[in-house]
Amino acid sequence: MGRTADYTNERCSVAATLEVVGDPWTLLILRDAFAGVKRFEQWQERLKSLVSHGVMETRRYSERPPRHEYWLTEKGLALSPVLLTMAEWGDRHVYGRDNSPVLFTHKACGCAFHPVLACEACGEVVGRRDLERSSRQADSLTVGEALEAANMAAE
Amino acid sequence: MGRTADYTNERCSVAATLEVVGDPWTLLILRDAFAGVKRFEQWQERLKSLVSHGVMETRRYSERPPRHEYWLTEKGLALSPVLLTMAEWGDRHVYGRDNSPVLFTHKACGCAFHPVLACEACGEVVGRRDLERSSRQADSLTVGEALEAANMAAE
Repeated sequence: MGRTADYTNERCSVAATLEVVGDPWTLLILRDAFAGVKRFEQWQERLKSLVSHGVMETRRYSERPPRHEYWLTEKGLALSPVLLTMAEWGDRHVYGRDNSPVLFTHKACGCAFHPVLACEACGEVVGRRDLERSSRQADSLTVGEALEAANMAAE
Repeated sequence: MGRTADYTNERCSVAATLEVVGDPWTLLILRDAFAGVKRFEQWQERLKSLVSHGVMETRRYSERPPRHEYWLTEKGLALSPVLLTMAEWGDRHVYGRDNSPVLFTHKACGCAFHPVLACEACGEVVGRRDLERSSRQADSLTVGEALEAANMAAE
């Protein structure tokens, strides 16, 4: 159940995200964190990695004995679209929508929430075919270089 | 680099998606598949798993010698929001938007594409705080049961 691969030499933002949350257990920790769980004594090693990447942070909740909780940072909270789109795919293609183990309601409209992607600039709903992809892979940083730069910027 | 965990006893659509695409290498294969790559002799084992889950399918492109390509199915293409939201997070939080290795353009509005989530029902852009979560975990299928049911339905 350890890390399964090293993406530091890839030049790709998907790989960059996997380098941080690439151990699948990591995503289940984050799922639980979004659901409000804050204490995971059994997952110390993985939590250390998430803290070192700035995705979670520790907050002390007891002085004697010293105890702390793990909270999502802003950077961690920004992973919610990844988890919501994963949950939607699992609902549709594994469970079937009628059997979803967890339901989300869009408070404003009152409907069961199913995410679609929209364009941040114009707000329109966007499908795969509405996008044009252009790569500048050759001269871009590797994941390892980008993580190093991001960690230095965060210090 | 093998599978890192068994999610079949979880009751959760995130875990269900991880059970299918949970090995992080799987997501990089899918990234390449979305980018048009169709032949991956080096990744046979992982591809077999994706084919068995109906995420990719083989198509023969040469009779002599017999050769085939791997194509995304509809079920596989439905993973594009997961990959796009992962790429967006890596862009924002690892690479920085100005250094993204791959750019997407929203053809209709001409802007650089950055995904946000919208509600399928009402089309409004939705953030984490706009959602209410309700669990019916106790009586729902495990991932293993749901996958079995999904595979039987697909036959």
